[in-house]
Amino acid sequence: MQFSEEIGVGLIGFGTIGTGVVRYFQEGRGEPFGVRLKKVADSDLSRPREVEFPGLTERASDVINDPEIQIVVELVGGENPALDFILDSMNLGKSVVTANKAVISRHIKVLFDAARDRDVDLAFEASVGGGIPIIRVLNGYKGDRFSRITGILNGTSNYILSRMEEGMDFEAALEIAQEKGFAEAAHELDTGGFDARDKLAIISSLAFGCAVVPEQIYCEGITGVTPVDLDFAEKHGVDEGGIGYSIRHLATARMVANQLELHVYPALISKDHPLSSVRNEVNAVYWEGELCGPQLFQGKGAGRDATTSAVLSDIFRLAHNLRSGTVDELPLLDRQVQLADVGSLQRRGYVRMGLKHIPGSIAETARIMGEHGFNIEDSVQRRKFRTESEGKAVIPDIVTVEALPYSTVEKAFRDLKESERVCGDPFFLRFES
Amino acid sequence: MQFSEEIGVGLIGFGTIGTGVVRYFQEGRGEPFGVRLKKVADSDLSRPREVEFPGLTERASDVINDPEIQIVVELVGGENPALDFILDSMNLGKSVVTANKAVISRHIKVLFDAARDRDVDLAFEASVGGGIPIIRVLNGYKGDRFSRITGILNGTSNYILSRMEEGMDFEAALEIAQEKGFAEAAHELDTGGFDARDKLAIISSLAFGCAVVPEQIYCEGITGVTPVDLDFAEKHGVDEGGIGYSIRHLATARMVANQLELHVYPALISKDHPLSSVRNEVNAVYWEGELCGPQLFQGKGAGRDATTSAVLSDIFRLAHNLRSGTVDELPLLDRQVQLADVGSLQRRGYVRMGLKHIPGSIAETARIMGEHGFNIEDSVQRRKFRTESEGKAVIPDIVTVEALPYSTVEKAFRDLKESERVCGDPFFLRFES
Repeated sequence: MQFSEEIGVGLIGFGTIGTGVVRYFQEGRGEPFGVRLKKVADSDLSRPREVEFPGLTERASDVINDPEIQIVVELVGGENPALDFILDSMNLGKSVVTANKAVISRHIKVLFDAARDRDVDLAFEASVGGGIPIIRVLNGYKGDRFSRITGILNGTSNYILSRMEEGMDFEAALEIAQEKGFAEAAHELDTGGFDARDKLAIISSLAFGCAVVPEQIYCEGITGVTPVDLDFAEKHGVDEGGIGYSIRHLATARMVANQLELHVYPALISKDHPLSSVRNEVNAVYWEGELCGPQLFQGKGAGRDATTSAVLSDIFRLAHNLRSGTVDELPLLDRQVQLADVGSLQRRGYVRMGLKHIPGSIAETARIMGEHGFNIEDSVQRRKFRTESEGKAVIPDIVTVEALPYSTVEKAFRDLKESERVCGDPFFLRFES
Repeated sequence: MQFSEEIGVGLIGFGTIGTGVVRYFQEGRGEPFGVRLKKVADSDLSRPREVEFPGLTERASDVINDPEIQIVVELVGGENPALDFILDSMNLGKSVVTANKAVISRHIKVLFDAARDRDVDLAFEASVGGGIPIIRVLNGYKGDRFSRITGILNGTSNYILSRMEEGMDFEAALEIAQEKGFAEAAHELDTGGFDARDKLAIISSLAFGCAVVPEQIYCEGITGVTPVDLDFAEKHGVDEGGIGYSIRHLATARMVANQLELHVYPALISKDHPLSSVRNEVNAVYWEGELCGPQLFQGKGAGRDATTSAVLSDIFRLAHNLRSGTVDELPLLDRQVQLADVGSLQRRGYVRMGLKHIPGSIAETARIMGEHGFNIEDSVQRRKFRTESEGKAVIPDIVTVEALPYSTVEKAFRDLKESERVCGDPFFLRFES
């Protein structure tokens, strides 16, 4: 195909994903699209890299101000100065591609409004779900309405839970995840749930047409999950002909009675739920539309190649838009939505606590839970996971309870922690329904 | 949002999907998009319908020629006269939305070229995968390359196989599918694989940038599958610690050494393959991209609401395009691709035949297979599925064989059918790898 005019691309941030993008263009694969990578900036010129880019600059402004660059690709990550790079580029009439979930999730309405005001494109497919085109797909539904989105949005957490299903404890699974490159040394953004929270904010905003920021979302990571919990999940209900449960780290958004419920947390999900079979570093999104019904999308949620694929799709679509004189339609995000108070939400639950193995322990904890209105369905002690504390045996006691509000769980846990018969913190898991 | 100009939509074909679309607009849900349904045509004015449309006409030309209609929605189905309706509309400068897999699959290049020449849109999301946005997603990958696509594209066949997994035979499962509305009285388009073949032609053309027509694709349906095969699949390899196999009706496209291999057939797939857990009337597509890696998309592949969702997404996107003065980018489909000769493809396989229960039957069939070069891995007789023929017991004999070309299987089957010890037609299934 012949193009009347070559489109110039500039890149800010020459790290892992940047390397994937630079290599792609250096293989000449931008030419069929009439797109050329003109300039690359990175604050660290000395870092060894797998590919070289002649004329690498350390000033982002060299990229942003270059009149031959129409599309700026921001791969710096983090909130600042990336936000300024994006806004400065748009103010100069340039289209922007970013993989930056921290910026998009926290400034989504400001950025969408800025893009619309300046009639430029802002594309961010790579910010959620790596190579899975979640953003394109969500923006593509026009006329349908969503009631629920549930995602496995953090590959590190899912990888660790998959290893723990095989019997490892959290620390051993984390170590393997780090060796394989699925977890970083500073793993708290992933294992604490914060990465998934940023992504949930973005897809909830798109699916429900409102501007949600991460800090509004209840967030719990996987660091509290132990082998006892996975063992319980595997076996729960199997005696009665059930197929058991998995534990998955979920990011969920539900619209119930015009209130939006937003959560990030580890949950027990039945093995016949489509998300139960999503294993290892894979990401997935499950949603239910009024017309399209339930759908599942799964694939590689991270990694250089998958994320590069998302960045390239954005670059080449924006190049086409520039030639056609059009821009993507960004939602207004002007819907006023009340966020549900998480403390008042009712969920069926699972409580695990370490009990001193002395007469009366079960009676006392059952009494405390009963006083707080816990309606206990099942109660098991797992001798197999016996430990010791101060020379005394400690045995995990597990109860499942009928739906109750989170706030009640918190209050009961305060009382349970005060009991001398309870060792360590009690742990609560929700059943996903 | 205020729109400078209302976009007029006309509908041809007021059947099941048409009813979904008409109802949506009559609920006033087109107004937020500035889109109005102006006219509806159907050749049968007398059919009772769930919703009424005032001014229903029996002439498609009334819709096509109406100057207030900018988007024509073709929901007639079948190749003719639908093709003319689409071409006539485009010739008048109108954009077209269609759910018609028969037309798109057989005339994809002519239609794409016509749309490009006339600078109008042609959208066909509803032609493949119902509410799953397969077309949008495939067209959205820019810069990535696919090596393989495998789909479960016919909900009827998947529903019947799911029931057969529970022990039913084909006829009983078909009857339930018909009762539930998942299969029509004339079920051969579905159970014979032809519906899936049309859809495979469309997605292969998009994924590989060439124009494939359905008649070029090897096509086998599910009518030959029996409970013996599903019983075998469930148990195969489990003794040795495996997890067993499912039988799924697959539509596959693989690019191997610059040859495109296209198949529609029932196959044995390992239970750890993502497509194995796709059950009932659900459709799914699994693909592997060079950069994005393996991905799975699943959801409702048919039904009024799911298909209506796809039609609406197309209508509202095209309305936005009209206001922006742009059109979707359609691939040129000018890549020259050699189609692989199916007869020469090698696959690991499964052979099932009914043997007369008399001494020497196994020896004779083993001899015939040996002469044709079958390298037998396993051989089992399933007494449980014993039947009778002419007063003699007939027992299914099953062998698994190492990879061999289809053409060899065909030749061997001719000889096996001639043997007096073989009752009925031998049956071949491929292992999907």
